[in-house]
Amino acid sequence: MKALISPKLVAALLLGLLAGTVVFGFLLGPVVQGAATSPSQYQRPYPMPNQFYKQTEEFYVFASGGQQGGMYVYGVPSMKYLSEIPIFVEDQAWGWVAEDPKIRQMLTNPWTGELITRGDTHHPSASKTNGVYDGRWVFVNDKQHARIGRVDLDTFRTGQILWIPNTTGGVHGFNVGPDTKLAVQNFEHEQYPEKAIRDHLGLAIDPIKGPYVAGVAGIRIADDGTMSNGWQVWGPWQFDMARIGWGDSSGWLMTTAYNTERATDAVGMFQRDQDYLFFWNLASIEKAIADKKYVTTEQAPDVPVVSWKDVEVYVTPIPLNPHGLDISPTGKYFLTSGKATTLIAAVDIEKVLLAIKDQKVIGEEFGVKILDPDFVRAATMDLGMGPTHIEFDDKGYAYVGFFVDSDIKKVALGGPYVKLHGQQDKVWKVVDVLPAHYSVGHLVVPGGDTAKPYGKYIISMNKLTKDTFLNHGPLESENHELFTIGQTPAKLVDQMPLGPETHYSQAIPVSLIQGKTKHSYSEAAAAVGQQPSVEYDYAAKEVRVTMSVVRSFFTPGILTVPQGWMVKAKLISGETAMDISHGFALDSYNVSVSLDPGEVRDIEFVADKAGVHWYYCIWFCSELHMEMRGRMVVIPQSEWTPDKETKLPSA
Amino acid sequence: MKALISPKLVAALLLGLLAGTVVFGFLLGPVVQGAATSPSQYQRPYPMPNQFYKQTEEFYVFASGGQQGGMYVYGVPSMKYLSEIPIFVEDQAWGWVAEDPKIRQMLTNPWTGELITRGDTHHPSASKTNGVYDGRWVFVNDKQHARIGRVDLDTFRTGQILWIPNTTGGVHGFNVGPDTKLAVQNFEHEQYPEKAIRDHLGLAIDPIKGPYVAGVAGIRIADDGTMSNGWQVWGPWQFDMARIGWGDSSGWLMTTAYNTERATDAVGMFQRDQDYLFFWNLASIEKAIADKKYVTTEQAPDVPVVSWKDVEVYVTPIPLNPHGLDISPTGKYFLTSGKATTLIAAVDIEKVLLAIKDQKVIGEEFGVKILDPDFVRAATMDLGMGPTHIEFDDKGYAYVGFFVDSDIKKVALGGPYVKLHGQQDKVWKVVDVLPAHYSVGHLVVPGGDTAKPYGKYIISMNKLTKDTFLNHGPLESENHELFTIGQTPAKLVDQMPLGPETHYSQAIPVSLIQGKTKHSYSEAAAAVGQQPSVEYDYAAKEVRVTMSVVRSFFTPGILTVPQGWMVKAKLISGETAMDISHGFALDSYNVSVSLDPGEVRDIEFVADKAGVHWYYCIWFCSELHMEMRGRMVVIPQSEWTPDKETKLPSA
Repeated sequence: MKALISPKLVAALLLGLLAGTVVFGFLLGPVVQGAATSPSQYQRPYPMPNQFYKQTEEFYVFASGGQQGGMYVYGVPSMKYLSEIPIFVEDQAWGWVAEDPKIRQMLTNPWTGELITRGDTHHPSASKTNGVYDGRWVFVNDKQHARIGRVDLDTFRTGQILWIPNTTGGVHGFNVGPDTKLAVQNFEHEQYPEKAIRDHLGLAIDPIKGPYVAGVAGIRIADDGTMSNGWQVWGPWQFDMARIGWGDSSGWLMTTAYNTERATDAVGMFQRDQDYLFFWNLASIEKAIADKKYVTTEQAPDVPVVSWKDVEVYVTPIPLNPHGLDISPTGKYFLTSGKATTLIAAVDIEKVLLAIKDQKVIGEEFGVKILDPDFVRAATMDLGMGPTHIEFDDKGYAYVGFFVDSDIKKVALGGPYVKLHGQQDKVWKVVDVLPAHYSVGHLVVPGGDTAKPYGKYIISMNKLTKDTFLNHGPLESENHELFTIGQTPAKLVDQMPLGPETHYSQAIPVSLIQGKTKHSYSEAAAAVGQQPSVEYDYAAKEVRVTMSVVRSFFTPGILTVPQGWMVKAKLISGETAMDISHGFALDSYNVSVSLDPGEVRDIEFVADKAGVHWYYCIWFCSELHMEMRGRMVVIPQSEWTPDKETKLPSA
Repeated sequence: MKALISPKLVAALLLGLLAGTVVFGFLLGPVVQGAATSPSQYQRPYPMPNQFYKQTEEFYVFASGGQQGGMYVYGVPSMKYLSEIPIFVEDQAWGWVAEDPKIRQMLTNPWTGELITRGDTHHPSASKTNGVYDGRWVFVNDKQHARIGRVDLDTFRTGQILWIPNTTGGVHGFNVGPDTKLAVQNFEHEQYPEKAIRDHLGLAIDPIKGPYVAGVAGIRIADDGTMSNGWQVWGPWQFDMARIGWGDSSGWLMTTAYNTERATDAVGMFQRDQDYLFFWNLASIEKAIADKKYVTTEQAPDVPVVSWKDVEVYVTPIPLNPHGLDISPTGKYFLTSGKATTLIAAVDIEKVLLAIKDQKVIGEEFGVKILDPDFVRAATMDLGMGPTHIEFDDKGYAYVGFFVDSDIKKVALGGPYVKLHGQQDKVWKVVDVLPAHYSVGHLVVPGGDTAKPYGKYIISMNKLTKDTFLNHGPLESENHELFTIGQTPAKLVDQMPLGPETHYSQAIPVSLIQGKTKHSYSEAAAAVGQQPSVEYDYAAKEVRVTMSVVRSFFTPGILTVPQGWMVKAKLISGETAMDISHGFALDSYNVSVSLDPGEVRDIEFVADKAGVHWYYCIWFCSELHMEMRGRMVVIPQSEWTPDKETKLPSA
């Protein structure tokens, strides 16, 4: 466990650089690969046949969008942007707007009643069965507001948003377990929680000076995908990355903390030589709850909050300010990268369990036993500057991204993985270097975080692109680079500019999703019999409308409303044909929804502006699209008389 | 002027189809081109060299986003999504949020004070000098709220949003003139305007039954790109597409109306055999204003509103319910497509001027003389079902998109264009058919709406994709298809899935933009000397903060605030290096802005939630990105004492 460069020295170097304006990526010039021109399967044919991309895609990629607030979807190997899935942020483009009361409720903080339209999606984690993707859902978290979204892969739309209580946000690592029963959400930003939690932890906390505390939230997932807040376990530290174990590590939850210093500023967070990897025994958390060793809070009276003191938890030191925490396919090795060092630690769960059994401890902190790192580690690799995340392939290799070095290093795993790659002499050593343009933040191998990596490709989600693509102002694109890794050396296949800012991706085989996706909703069929209608409720000052929407008519095509009344409209798409979407945008009002084939949507708004306002279809749905419009006539209350009510012929 | 199919019959057929669920595109099966495999410049090399796309792009494409509310940017021929430019709709991904007071003001209706976060961008129109793109700005309109945005091509950000008065929205055709002095915005949706306008027009209008009226807004553009409302001319009809003439048609404004029936429902809008193309003499509008023949309204006392009766205006009949209105490169021919027919009319401006001079009229309506169509037309072409828009290349050809036929027809222009293509025997005839997948709405040839088309490519912006790409739920992608048109037949080069929903694009040569784009803002340099500071204003209940943001620190790193106070923060990026963006997201608050290199941004919000809330960087800006955070501690007013104020060392 000897580093060639002292971790402290690297941290000091990094901090020093930050004071100036030197850009890390510039330290090494870009490595330009030669342009071979021999044809391959990755070249597009010319001329292009229709459906070429549909027929040649192998993986869907679901990439978190960071401040985009949802996820991007694209195809591999085409590297073609396909779609976006809005989750935590209103997005009119994709019909995700708060004038739909169902969406408004999802976006509303259940404790403050505030509509939240900012978010920061971080870690997508797909549903799994026996540790392998099953193509049902992708879950993803919102760092800013401590929310979890569930995206349903039959519709590619968000089906649920779960709000996590007892936190003011700033969460980070999120992971769904191997059988989609449990997910965990770490609290990265240190908290000053409600008094019940403070008292239960028994730690002195000054609201301004700290040191603060944090927790890990356990989220239960029902068979139909419904999430609920299960439990929280809190302790003296913040928690960053999270992984629920499988295989060799079944029953354990692993988390990291980069601020074991319990500091409140960046410099303070780098004071120690090493930070911690945590091992939580999941059964011990359930037992503490069964034994009633918990408190609840005013905000969440149904969610048990457990103290770290009442559960079985161990730590082991890992390189300073860990970033990635990733588990090898059999669940055996935990690779953690010390981002302020050049080091990657490979911790062996079998040795961890032995260390627990045999009490191979070197001390304790806040009552938590510190397992001997020399005993539990399979290796400590000194690989380069700025290690970030790690993924695994199907051939016994790990891939480590380096932000500062701007590359990915391919490492041969030891132990049982030697039989896959057969390179006994290369174990825990670099066997290939993949140059990236530039500054690798995250990376993904299809299935690379599961028990069954599909391998073949790796995508480098680069944080900086600088001059890689056409310039388009001070805000540059991101860059997703696709490499083939079936051979050594890996080869750069394609580059893909993308929007802000992906923090991780899940690449899922097309075969698990294609064919299950819906082409239309069945809701309209269920709404059959709901004829168009208009109802005036003078007591509630409400107009309730059931509106049929089908090429190329809105029915009713006119709607008179007394000014200031609430309009509650149920829009029913009568379309059953693939790809025939409509919309309802209302001139001069802050109202615009889309309506996909067969979809039924409620919208609500106050008719506060008098005059003629047309509602019109926002999708070019037929040759008569422009004429597909109706008018809402809002009449000042002083001029309103009941004979001005809209009457339908059928009424 | 004889149609093979009666226009009325086609309209009836279309309306009939609409009543069922038959999809037009299905009427003809897709035409699948053979897949040749010979290499060409359009194939990506493998392995991919870095900067391949940057070095091989020929055009930037700026595509309106429809309900996306801004524009998409991509490259040709790579067909790679590059970026998005938010305009009319909040978009946190790209830092376009209302907590920035400058943006809030742009998005706020100046007459109602309402923050508008819905929009529907339609017709991008680039700045031009002598009728040719000059790479300064792209202007684009919002159909829903009658707004014009100006995107500055040095920053790829919106510099101004102009709100158009006297309308409840529902505008459509928008066009910037050949020297970027004047733009026009047509009002598509019929209006019930303020009394001053109704009286001035002297037409009977029932607020519920109509028939309504509409206008054309003239927008003046200053040398620095600043837009202002210049004038409006109103008449008895709605106005759809708009083109300001150049070359042969200099001094004239052309508009179409598809609802010359003045109906209020779709069926009524198809009653006539033909609709109108309008010719407005621009000098006559200026003269009416100079002669004080106008009114103004309470809403816009500075904007003269002219009656159609006081200006020089003519119409000529064109095929029923026109969609496209496009001008050939020398300004001579106006091609209009009757979307409820199979007909394209080519009107010759020289004959129009002759008809005006020689009074070749066949009647008048509302006092407007109707020019003899047999006299003014160069040709009437019967080309296919569902004609939409028309573009031109540099070799004397026009390209007409067909929604129902799902193809683009290439037509040889007559007159002076014969010398370009040399096909005298093919004049006004189809010389090539480009199959599209499916349903062509809009199309663009680089420079195809200017005096200097660049040709070489055409992009078909298809409205339906059905099963072209991987399925991803009921809402399918759009499809932009790139064809090469330098040879006959044209060849499909690439397909590109894209988000909702483009209504037109401008394809501008890379050479006009690249090199002028900024990599950082100079604002921070101007803010030098503004040291970080915190100021508590007990009278205003405001905390004013000047905050430095530079890798990897926010200064101040702590901010104490009495609960309920306003926080006004000026964020100053100290970065000068390319691509180093930061952000400021605030845990649990609806606040998240990005901060590009050298940018200075103001944000304002009320600190209404007590407790510790971390602000953190949302861009992975360095290896110490996670630690780049500070905390806002909001203290209940009852617990606040001045000694809790944040004090900076330098203060």
